[in-house]
Amino acid sequence: MQHKRFATMACPIARGLDRVGEWWSILILRDAFAGLTRFDAFQKSLGIAPTMLTRRLTALVEAGLLEKHRYADKPPRDEYRLTERGQDFRPVLIAMMAWGNQHFAEDGVRVQIVEAATGIPAEPVMVDRRTGRSLLEPDYVVVRGKPAAAHSGTQEQSA
Amino acid sequence: MQHKRFATMACPIARGLDRVGEWWSILILRDAFAGLTRFDAFQKSLGIAPTMLTRRLTALVEAGLLEKHRYADKPPRDEYRLTERGQDFRPVLIAMMAWGNQHFAEDGVRVQIVEAATGIPAEPVMVDRRTGRSLLEPDYVVVRGKPAAAHSGTQEQSA
Repeated sequence: MQHKRFATMACPIARGLDRVGEWWSILILRDAFAGLTRFDAFQKSLGIAPTMLTRRLTALVEAGLLEKHRYADKPPRDEYRLTERGQDFRPVLIAMMAWGNQHFAEDGVRVQIVEAATGIPAEPVMVDRRTGRSLLEPDYVVVRGKPAAAHSGTQEQSA
Repeated sequence: MQHKRFATMACPIARGLDRVGEWWSILILRDAFAGLTRFDAFQKSLGIAPTMLTRRLTALVEAGLLEKHRYADKPPRDEYRLTERGQDFRPVLIAMMAWGNQHFAEDGVRVQIVEAATGIPAEPVMVDRRTGRSLLEPDYVVVRGKPAAAHSGTQEQSA
């Protein structure tokens, strides 16, 4: 049910999610980055059941990605804002968006990240801040092990 | 149940997932990037029920992220390999890993991406391939709209 809804959304993140899992929480974060803060706004954007939205928002607050702020007392109303931890999730969303646009934008790219000054679409690529090079194999490898072992020759390669 | 298991894993991706949702599929992809191809290997790595693993593998094949290859006939045995679409998911995993290490590695970084030649840990950052600059606001903004409208002044900002 959720899957069908996701698949028909224009958003490349939603389309990507459709292929990988059910992630309302990610879409809540996406909307939070778009500036949404209030329950009603999230519900309107996502079209999910209030009970489900409440559950996901509560989980995101408990996980430290969103913070609750009371903006009205009678009746009590809260809004939800991204914490620093939530803000730091942005690269994951951008990577998801790029992947969704790359593989699931059969009808054209509908949401994308552009250079603000020129409107030219960005081509997101993940690099090493120190070297500026792409994090591709074989130049970059994922290693498992405690921090102290990071420079030793006994690393076990992993994902 | 799944959540508790995720939270106690050393993997920063799993820890991140624990905060955001339930994503066995992502962890299957992570293991596929680590070189796992066979059902038994995935099951051993993930410790999930065979029925669940079968379901997730089938979904990833149907979504075009994994391909099934028969490697034995008696009895019939298949292995699962990343497709190009699956390979292209790597930046999402790296972004998840970086975020997990940044926020949930209380006991030290246990899995990370390093420069192969030097062993120096990479600092993953998402940039625009054309300009080399970080995709941060306000320099880069997410816009909604059809491709033809990408350069117009009528874009609706979104995340």
